[in-house]
Amino acid sequence: MNEPELIEKLRRRVGLPRAAGVVLGIGDDCAIVRPRGTREDWLYTTDMLLEGTHFLRPTHGAADVGWKALARGLSDIAAMGGEARFCLLSLAVAPWVDGRWLDGFYRGLLGLAERAGAALIGGDLARTERVLCDIVVAGTVPRGTALRRDGARAGDAIYVSGALGGSALGLAAGRGRAWLRHKRPEPRLALGRFLRARLGATAAMDLSDGLSLDLHRLCAASGLRAEIAAPPVYRGATLEQALHGGEDYELLFTAPARVRAPDAFEGLALTRIGTMRKGTAGAVEMDGAPLPPLGYDHLRHL
Amino acid sequence: MNEPELIEKLRRRVGLPRAAGVVLGIGDDCAIVRPRGTREDWLYTTDMLLEGTHFLRPTHGAADVGWKALARGLSDIAAMGGEARFCLLSLAVAPWVDGRWLDGFYRGLLGLAERAGAALIGGDLARTERVLCDIVVAGTVPRGTALRRDGARAGDAIYVSGALGGSALGLAAGRGRAWLRHKRPEPRLALGRFLRARLGATAAMDLSDGLSLDLHRLCAASGLRAEIAAPPVYRGATLEQALHGGEDYELLFTAPARVRAPDAFEGLALTRIGTMRKGTAGAVEMDGAPLPPLGYDHLRHL
Repeated sequence: MNEPELIEKLRRRVGLPRAAGVVLGIGDDCAIVRPRGTREDWLYTTDMLLEGTHFLRPTHGAADVGWKALARGLSDIAAMGGEARFCLLSLAVAPWVDGRWLDGFYRGLLGLAERAGAALIGGDLARTERVLCDIVVAGTVPRGTALRRDGARAGDAIYVSGALGGSALGLAAGRGRAWLRHKRPEPRLALGRFLRARLGATAAMDLSDGLSLDLHRLCAASGLRAEIAAPPVYRGATLEQALHGGEDYELLFTAPARVRAPDAFEGLALTRIGTMRKGTAGAVEMDGAPLPPLGYDHLRHL
Repeated sequence: MNEPELIEKLRRRVGLPRAAGVVLGIGDDCAIVRPRGTREDWLYTTDMLLEGTHFLRPTHGAADVGWKALARGLSDIAAMGGEARFCLLSLAVAPWVDGRWLDGFYRGLLGLAERAGAALIGGDLARTERVLCDIVVAGTVPRGTALRRDGARAGDAIYVSGALGGSALGLAAGRGRAWLRHKRPEPRLALGRFLRARLGATAAMDLSDGLSLDLHRLCAASGLRAEIAAPPVYRGATLEQALHGGEDYELLFTAPARVRAPDAFEGLALTRIGTMRKGTAGAVEMDGAPLPPLGYDHLRHL
């Protein structure tokens, strides 16, 4: 069983959430909940960051780890066009962790939390073999306006922000600007709000597991297929890294073809890479050939 | 650095949450957030459940693990008098986990979720060496009515629900009713709501790390000390297990001395064990002698 299969199985088992106020359950970047009497919808996401998988003790500083733990959750809020409101952190510490490392970790996390307006309001602590962080981030959007994966329509233009493959390049190189990009991803919160409130985007998600897999997911959720050309490639990265490399945390989004998206938002390039089409849900073609979803699947072994 | 020291350090570092709507941050069973325009306060808690620490593969069935992962979070909602609303689950699976185990795990978790009204609306998946679950539970209370640790006043009576030490006994015995109690703790949600809405409790928390440590925490939060007699002991357990054993998930609460608490709530005994007093904040005396906080500290090695 792989990750999409398990998630799909869970979705079917849980069914449409019958609980009052739950607008959207399992399967998107965030769940959506509508508290009684408010004009805002609340977004919730959780993201794990694991030693050995997402970071290594010798190469990733404590502050980088704290930053990245939160950045992953903020990126999900950005993908739905949300404003970050607060976060909670569950932290399991390994035997090698000392007070100095914890200091650095919280410095990285709280620095980003302050910038993003996501106060740390709680969490849990435990001991384990390897460090594991699980961040919960809550955000808000005006009622009914969250950008979802399932909102794309046939004929919509497909865009990405920035250039892709930088994180994969950085991980391979272990130094330079790409390395910094890998260690300190920037959640695109302002861009997400712009896409929701100004541009009229129809769907969005963040690129955490690679364009090929993430676009496949957006297409599947929207019941459409996609035709794209090669995306913008991060300087020095390969096309393979740009297509299948994870952790870029750029935004992938769609907008009606008549919408004129600007070339850039606050210095960040916005590039049209293709078009949504009717056809086999989830299928992606690049330059006329099938593009297999080769991005990172956390459960491929099951 | 131990767990209370780290939490206190974090509280000072984060400061009073300046974010709009945050009523209570780090340090209680749940954080409290007040969305704009609502009459309800929202409660949030996260709780980890680790293979090797909270459960073992040979002795704990998959459905028990799923149940307990959620029960721990629900117990925090119960402690504040809340109604459970939804949950999210981050699950890191070990190499030995197969589809059958996952099926059982979700059966245990979703069964309890349905009973408690806490729909599973999202989460995250990853691979690791040992299974780790992190549950997020959200609940609600009428605005301003959540039971907190810091609400006890000098002269208040101190109570516990049920009999203590059953979980520690069950863990030691590995069979019988106490073992079931250890594997399938019952979050006291109905009792928590009764304490908040009917009894007029002044403070409450759940007993997850042992009475001696948890009462110390309630006293410290309220700026008071406590004088108690021996608590009710689970049949077959020792007084040591009742005082210092973890994971009973009963409720510890205080109420004004004039309040007449019933002897039982829905068949669950409520026993007065002592009185809150002015004096050294956090100090606990049992039968005139200091009771050291020997419960479980997740970070004592740091």
